[in-house]
Amino acid sequence: MTQHASLVALQERIAAVNDVLNATSVLTWDSRTMMPAGGAETRGHQIATLTRIARDLLLAPETERALEGAERAVEGLAEDSAERRMVQQTRHAVEHHKRVPASLIQERAALRTVAQAAWIEARSKSEFSIFSSYLAKTVELSRAYADCIGWSEHPYDAMVSIYEPGETAASLKDLFKELRAGLLPILDAARSRPQPRSDFLFRDFPEEGQRAFGLSLTEKLGYDLQRGRLDTTVHPFEVSFTRNDVRIATRYNRNYLPASIFGTAHETGHGLYEQGVDPAYTRTTLTTDLVGLYTVGGTSFGAHESQSRLWENHIVRSRTFWQLHFPELQKHFPDQRGDVSAEEFYRAVTRVEPGFIRVEADELTYDFHIIMRADIECALMDGSLPVADLPEAWNAAIRRDLDLVVPNDAHGVLQDVHWSTGYIGSFPTYTIGNVMGAQMMETLRRQKPSLDAAITAGEYSTLAQELRTRIWQHGRRFRRDELLERETGRRLDPAPYLAYLRSKYAT
Amino acid sequence: MTQHASLVALQERIAAVNDVLNATSVLTWDSRTMMPAGGAETRGHQIATLTRIARDLLLAPETERALEGAERAVEGLAEDSAERRMVQQTRHAVEHHKRVPASLIQERAALRTVAQAAWIEARSKSEFSIFSSYLAKTVELSRAYADCIGWSEHPYDAMVSIYEPGETAASLKDLFKELRAGLLPILDAARSRPQPRSDFLFRDFPEEGQRAFGLSLTEKLGYDLQRGRLDTTVHPFEVSFTRNDVRIATRYNRNYLPASIFGTAHETGHGLYEQGVDPAYTRTTLTTDLVGLYTVGGTSFGAHESQSRLWENHIVRSRTFWQLHFPELQKHFPDQRGDVSAEEFYRAVTRVEPGFIRVEADELTYDFHIIMRADIECALMDGSLPVADLPEAWNAAIRRDLDLVVPNDAHGVLQDVHWSTGYIGSFPTYTIGNVMGAQMMETLRRQKPSLDAAITAGEYSTLAQELRTRIWQHGRRFRRDELLERETGRRLDPAPYLAYLRSKYAT
Repeated sequence: MTQHASLVALQERIAAVNDVLNATSVLTWDSRTMMPAGGAETRGHQIATLTRIARDLLLAPETERALEGAERAVEGLAEDSAERRMVQQTRHAVEHHKRVPASLIQERAALRTVAQAAWIEARSKSEFSIFSSYLAKTVELSRAYADCIGWSEHPYDAMVSIYEPGETAASLKDLFKELRAGLLPILDAARSRPQPRSDFLFRDFPEEGQRAFGLSLTEKLGYDLQRGRLDTTVHPFEVSFTRNDVRIATRYNRNYLPASIFGTAHETGHGLYEQGVDPAYTRTTLTTDLVGLYTVGGTSFGAHESQSRLWENHIVRSRTFWQLHFPELQKHFPDQRGDVSAEEFYRAVTRVEPGFIRVEADELTYDFHIIMRADIECALMDGSLPVADLPEAWNAAIRRDLDLVVPNDAHGVLQDVHWSTGYIGSFPTYTIGNVMGAQMMETLRRQKPSLDAAITAGEYSTLAQELRTRIWQHGRRFRRDELLERETGRRLDPAPYLAYLRSKYAT
Repeated sequence: MTQHASLVALQERIAAVNDVLNATSVLTWDSRTMMPAGGAETRGHQIATLTRIARDLLLAPETERALEGAERAVEGLAEDSAERRMVQQTRHAVEHHKRVPASLIQERAALRTVAQAAWIEARSKSEFSIFSSYLAKTVELSRAYADCIGWSEHPYDAMVSIYEPGETAASLKDLFKELRAGLLPILDAARSRPQPRSDFLFRDFPEEGQRAFGLSLTEKLGYDLQRGRLDTTVHPFEVSFTRNDVRIATRYNRNYLPASIFGTAHETGHGLYEQGVDPAYTRTTLTTDLVGLYTVGGTSFGAHESQSRLWENHIVRSRTFWQLHFPELQKHFPDQRGDVSAEEFYRAVTRVEPGFIRVEADELTYDFHIIMRADIECALMDGSLPVADLPEAWNAAIRRDLDLVVPNDAHGVLQDVHWSTGYIGSFPTYTIGNVMGAQMMETLRRQKPSLDAAITAGEYSTLAQELRTRIWQHGRRFRRDELLERETGRRLDPAPYLAYLRSKYAT
């Protein structure tokens, strides 16, 4: 009885932490979609205060007492029971935060503010030197952070574990080696083909039509607008306050139609994951990243990305999809219709064209952008690459992999926001998402023979139901590789992803 | 030095409290403008948790230590200096919250949830008996709350002091007696006149045109959209996160144009007050209601309402305004123009027509709705009016003052949301706002002879500048009557309000 009360007490503590972190998520969403310019100054204070309060709640003696009691209470339960996992994850997070002193957190937060400003200036002037000292400091504090958390083989391990528990510098090296070897011949084959026409993607597409098609698209895929919203922003994103209040946001480029379509499809994939979590997990550890201190139902960055990439690329960026839905797209743009076929549209949105910018990359070259960033992060963290040499290393990698000469730093080393915000170690999760998404799709198509017919008929609820049962509903209860082993019989495996790309781009 | 450090320490504590309460304000704003239906369930938890955390921060030993030091630090300063007022107000709030046990707060919060649901059902069925037991409990807990806070003459004093410090049951009785005596002959005179035509207010006005005119209106009055937003909601409101992030929201009734115009003007008045607060007061006690636990720069409910009513009624509901701006309004509704003059429009939006519903009342009958509610609240609080007798008392008051027979409870005692949310004692502040607004305008017109010419020319910045200097910038530093004494030479005085109404409606 005493033990059971402790579990309830712990759940109440975590519910309060989740409430606070939910508020920070709302503040973040608001700042990226609704907030007038004037609000920026104090919004940072508000988010910092709430994050600190969440951490304080987690490290309070009352939490420790409840946690110790709860640990005894769950001893008899199955290792992977929801209750036991909640307690384990809470313990893991408490120990994590205990190891990181408040002073380091403050130092990193303070650096983030000035580093982002410097990055914005550096990028606009395309001058790495404006940003380099801030990046050097970011690497230094990341290294200090990694040392606090602890690592045995490589300091990068500690950073990666925050975003993708289970991965290390070594495991990523193996994965990326296999991927690169598999990708290069597919890319060669694709590049040897003539380019399809794509002029019609760059016409004038009024925002209203893009938005209407986007809303229709997201609902088609199963996104529930009674429990979610679709808004406009500069950099598309998804954030979840609970399974019943999920927000996705996309951008509309008036002269390039695919940006909003595939951006919306991508964020819808994230949104579906969050909307599909077991309602019983609301306000618990299983819908809260207590290490990263934010609200999320997905079990890792990579697992989350697997769902967004699956819907974006396997479903929406498919011939089948456009054979079905191209007429509807045309209806939204009556001035643009007539001279383009569904097949031409499909070929245009799957054309392969190596470029400098990661977020604009096609499916075949995208992972090269990630692999080189992971290599660089790793080398920055262990000191083998001095920050001053970074542009040179960057440009060499782009030349080697994509046969392109980077024209300036804005189109090279300064293009991503991540490092300026202190994120080191998150890039690999994008490629992990690609790999995991394909692995799940391969299994589903094999185990559920009716799936292909449903997709061909435009019935996406069959796929959603499978993913809900196998992945979404579990929230953060199972680790990414546990999910994969349960559903596909093996851990992360790049073979299905390479097979998918080969069949789509090299046959 | 030690004392000074305490002041800094106190300001840091209060800044954190303000951050937390800012977050609750964002959560509230979001829930009333953006949140999908699914979000409602957990949003209540989030707001409750943050409010509890704000109170805990205020009552923490660290705050007490800093407060004691700060009290010594400000001893030598002028009684009305900003620093001393911050410290005094913080002490007042701390003592307030100390007197109210957490159990009572929880009980009131729990009641609010069920009482609101019961009120919604009762109103939809127009059946007071569904709500009456919840109201009885609300009165009981309000009485308990008043007893905790403390009162000497009447338990209503404690409730009123939360919204309008300085007012009591007795002071309101005097004010309302004088008002009623002055209003009745004006109302009689107005009712003896023939009604102007108003059919054209009820035509079809597409939301887009209403929104465009509303945006233009709010900017015309000086609302800064770089530091604010205008959104759509069910019940118009204003909320401020800081002076640099103010949100107003209005509603659009497609078949009744004045609702959005005057609603927007009203909320703009609230918004201007908040946008005009001294930037130095951001994240301090002087922009936080530490008793009510929410963020606000206005010094009392009544003072706030004075600004909204001033802009709504003295400026926008004026002949001058429509002589200037009616052509612009017509441009937004090309299908409706042609057969109406500016004068006819002005007469229609100032027609006097007693009705059952407070929020739809004209300027002359509005205060009767308030006075009867205050009488009833007073009698509920001292027990002289049993809840069961409330509908009868209500209907009798409407018959006596407005000569109308209430057809059912939905059009009578069940029309307002206030009591179902535990708000008892806030109604009088609406009439205080009317009185204070007129008192300020009378003084401004007298002291600043160029003001009338500016208003007639549509230059509203002259008025805004005066109000900013005299009222807005001070935030919560001065009490309402202090502001009035500084600027008009006397405390709250209904004479200018009655003179304004007489000249507008009875000459």
